[in-house]
Amino acid sequence: MSAERPEGLDPADWDDFRALAHRALDDLVDRLEHRRDEPVWRPLPHEVRASFDGPLPREGIGVEAAYAEVMTRVAPYTMGNDHARFWGWYMGAGTPVGNLADLVASVLNPNLGGGDHAPVLVEQQVVRWCAEAVGYPTDASGLLVSGASEANLVGLAVARSAVLGPGVRTDGLAGTGRVAVYASAEVHSCHRKSCEVLGLGEAALRLVPVRDDFTLDVDALAEAVAADRAAGIRPLAVVATAGTINTGAVDDLDAVADLCAREGLWMHVDGAIGGFLGLSGRADLVRGLARADSVALDLHKWMQAPIDVGLVLVRDEAAHRATFSVVPAYLRHATRGLAAGDVWFNEYGIDLTRGFRALRVWMALLAHGADAHGAVMDRTTALAHRLADRVDDHPLLERMAPVGCDIVCFRYRPDGLDDEQLDAVNRELVLLVQESGVAIVTETALSGRLAVRVAIGNHRTRAEDVDLFLEALERLGPQAVTTATSGAR
Amino acid sequence: MSAERPEGLDPADWDDFRALAHRALDDLVDRLEHRRDEPVWRPLPHEVRASFDGPLPREGIGVEAAYAEVMTRVAPYTMGNDHARFWGWYMGAGTPVGNLADLVASVLNPNLGGGDHAPVLVEQQVVRWCAEAVGYPTDASGLLVSGASEANLVGLAVARSAVLGPGVRTDGLAGTGRVAVYASAEVHSCHRKSCEVLGLGEAALRLVPVRDDFTLDVDALAEAVAADRAAGIRPLAVVATAGTINTGAVDDLDAVADLCAREGLWMHVDGAIGGFLGLSGRADLVRGLARADSVALDLHKWMQAPIDVGLVLVRDEAAHRATFSVVPAYLRHATRGLAAGDVWFNEYGIDLTRGFRALRVWMALLAHGADAHGAVMDRTTALAHRLADRVDDHPLLERMAPVGCDIVCFRYRPDGLDDEQLDAVNRELVLLVQESGVAIVTETALSGRLAVRVAIGNHRTRAEDVDLFLEALERLGPQAVTTATSGAR
Ligand SMILES: Cc1ncc(COP(=O)(O)O)c(C=O)c1O
Ligand SMILES: Cc1ncc(COP(=O)(O)O)c(C=O)c1O
Repeated sequence: MSAERPEGLDPADWDDFRALAHRALDDLVDRLEHRRDEPVWRPLPHEVRASFDGPLPREGIGVEAAYAEVMTRVAPYTMGNDHARFWGWYMGAGTPVGNLADLVASVLNPNLGGGDHAPVLVEQQVVRWCAEAVGYPTDASGLLVSGASEANLVGLAVARSAVLGPGVRTDGLAGTGRVAVYASAEVHSCHRKSCEVLGLGEAALRLVPVRDDFTLDVDALAEAVAADRAAGIRPLAVVATAGTINTGAVDDLDAVADLCAREGLWMHVDGAIGGFLGLSGRADLVRGLARADSVALDLHKWMQAPIDVGLVLVRDEAAHRATFSVVPAYLRHATRGLAAGDVWFNEYGIDLTRGFRALRVWMALLAHGADAHGAVMDRTTALAHRLADRVDDHPLLERMAPVGCDIVCFRYRPDGLDDEQLDAVNRELVLLVQESGVAIVTETALSGRLAVRVAIGNHRTRAEDVDLFLEALERLGPQAVTTATSGAR
Repeated sequence: MSAERPEGLDPADWDDFRALAHRALDDLVDRLEHRRDEPVWRPLPHEVRASFDGPLPREGIGVEAAYAEVMTRVAPYTMGNDHARFWGWYMGAGTPVGNLADLVASVLNPNLGGGDHAPVLVEQQVVRWCAEAVGYPTDASGLLVSGASEANLVGLAVARSAVLGPGVRTDGLAGTGRVAVYASAEVHSCHRKSCEVLGLGEAALRLVPVRDDFTLDVDALAEAVAADRAAGIRPLAVVATAGTINTGAVDDLDAVADLCAREGLWMHVDGAIGGFLGLSGRADLVRGLARADSVALDLHKWMQAPIDVGLVLVRDEAAHRATFSVVPAYLRHATRGLAAGDVWFNEYGIDLTRGFRALRVWMALLAHGADAHGAVMDRTTALAHRLADRVDDHPLLERMAPVGCDIVCFRYRPDGLDDEQLDAVNRELVLLVQESGVAIVTETALSGRLAVRVAIGNHRTRAEDVDLFLEALERLGPQAVTTATSGAR
């Protein structure tokens, strides 16, 4: 046996490591404290980009030098979603409490696949707390996952086996005939991916038209279900969205629940964005969520947990477990010892080894309390309305959708340009805003036209940040017109 | 807009937070430094267990109090896999460098779904480095995932669409007819789950017999493929295992590759345990891995990364991307700004929002170097052989399998007990060892008999730890016989 490094990968000198770690911690707290004074995002210089090309290092450079590499080559060039003016796609900013929890979780390093240890109890409590927060039965089954994509996949997998029966697990889908899953045309693309992964196929996903407010047209849904039944296709589930990705629209959950009850369909709610509205002043919007068979939630969005953490809730614990449980001899549960424990989370989803992401949610809810999270939602909603009001008052800005949750869609609309030109101008405007470092906003398509999309969802944003963005628009709008209409780029 | 807490969820006083974080850091480094002197695991006291029952807190208790709750109610009662004598299932111990990386990653908090920022380059480099480490083409496509369960699922999903064609994504499996996936009877249970999730069904997974050394019988595999073809069932892929969960056996990868080449089958390697043997003195065992179409690896096992991180590699980038890519308007890639970037990882797997788990692998490979990881593997392998030798020399211990990787299976075998009784005695022995706090080992079934399974896989383990375990066996063996044969429990 090799005598070298009996300490394995632990430091040869703990005091050195401790000193470095304290220094790193100071750097990181400095960053958190002063991040709003830096650009949100900056392009990678060529030499930094090229510096990631090298081969596998055989010899180490030591932790101190490795940390220095991170701080010089990585930290200045991150995505920017930790910044107060990041409003792209839909992400939370992370929180210091979450960061501390992540450090603790990494050191404790438990495997949440199962077993009898306190981290499992933490995750179970987080599941119950979140169910309570969104008004769902607290005896529901639940599993923390990487995000809403996986949460939605798990929900649909349970629907698949609950509706089609246990034979699906044994024999697969080859003999089951065609099935259909319904959602609005504004549904998130992850549902298409779920249908594909589960072997149902994209064609099984029926995209039902939306109303003017971008919510699911429930009458059209009823017609689609009837048409499929008439064609011998088996309706399986309806996905209602509580907060669409484009505009934050919340489908009429009660109307969907009524239809699902009537038709005997599985009701799944994608609450990635708005699922936690129950904590906010707009809890009325999501009351019907309590009637769903399964719900997907994201903690790393409006709830501000560091990435990654989502949650799936399933009303019927037995159906949830029956979809995923496999217990071979080497994972046998015991009645004593470490292999005891009532719930083995690996029986409720895809992953066997599972990280301790529960801790970042548990510590945040404990430290801040649920009401503070609701207050963040109310505050970012108010900021979105502030922005929407400024847009409405501005002669050169045009709103493209109602404010849903805290998402605002609009476009810059100087006179004399047609829709094609406006698309090009607004695409350029988004890029100019990003490159300016003032804010990150992104684009989307609404009714076929390009919209500038501002998804606040960020506990760090203040009114002054919205105003800074509006100033940038004043400055960069004309520049976008020049660039886009001259074809200079 | 609510005027309260304009700082969102950031601390009202950064100095307070900083002081707490430094204190926490000291606690955690203390723990890492002295962990080997504590019990590996201890049962949860009743009052601690009950303390996780409370409802959602509406008001927060502050971060300082929340941290105190973690340290009193959670930290003392974790799984124990950070301890030098944890050898259950198969897990790495985590490393201080990985812990520091996790803190940095949490604060930077980037979304690795895509975009043009340095964390994406880090993950790309990690993929290339790992490919190089295992002797796979470094221009292969790759994706970090939660663990080998997900890596195996992704690999099989790519096989499914590559072999059956793009119609699977659109139309699903309803019309495709029966297919088969082959693996040894010792294959990990996650493959059954993958077949089920993907809609192929458990029945599609053919469990081919193993030889005496617990490796796949490649002749039996050839027969199974022929039999399926004759029955009109379409062979789709073969899963070869590099390091089985039970005994660490490494299938003959070259023989499997030959067969796959001959039969036109997708070759997937499950290298969760032994995939990185290429860095060790036993690189010869996994040379054939280079010929696989896809490979699943785990970084949180022998590579010691904090949980959770696995990796899937796919030789054909286009096939990988063609399996998962969905690019709606709100995720459109740009040529400038944050939405630029060559690779958007969300197009290669299930998750859209993705955490920065790459950093813990990148910093570890940079700080320690690949050779130090290979040395850990050699050292734990030598420790496994040390244990196996002691078992072989001991009159009351019986080895149950060859040492594969660093896994040892044996049983306590006092005279005069039949196999049923020995199963009960060894089950009890595992529990007594766990409850003693000396070590965590687990049980499995080998050829129908219960084995005590010791999967070292832990960079912290030293020779003295193996000896402590052997001493505990001496002490607890007779007690296990008394308890198990008296029916006292
Ligand atoms: C409505 C909706 N559903 C699902 C998702 C996917 O969530 P995640 O990125 O956490 O996987 C998103 C992401 O933005 C979303 O907005
Ligand atoms: C051979 C093998 N494959 C797959 C897995 C699943 O890996 P994970 O637990 O990382 O999901 C394991 C876990 O022990 C394993 O040993």
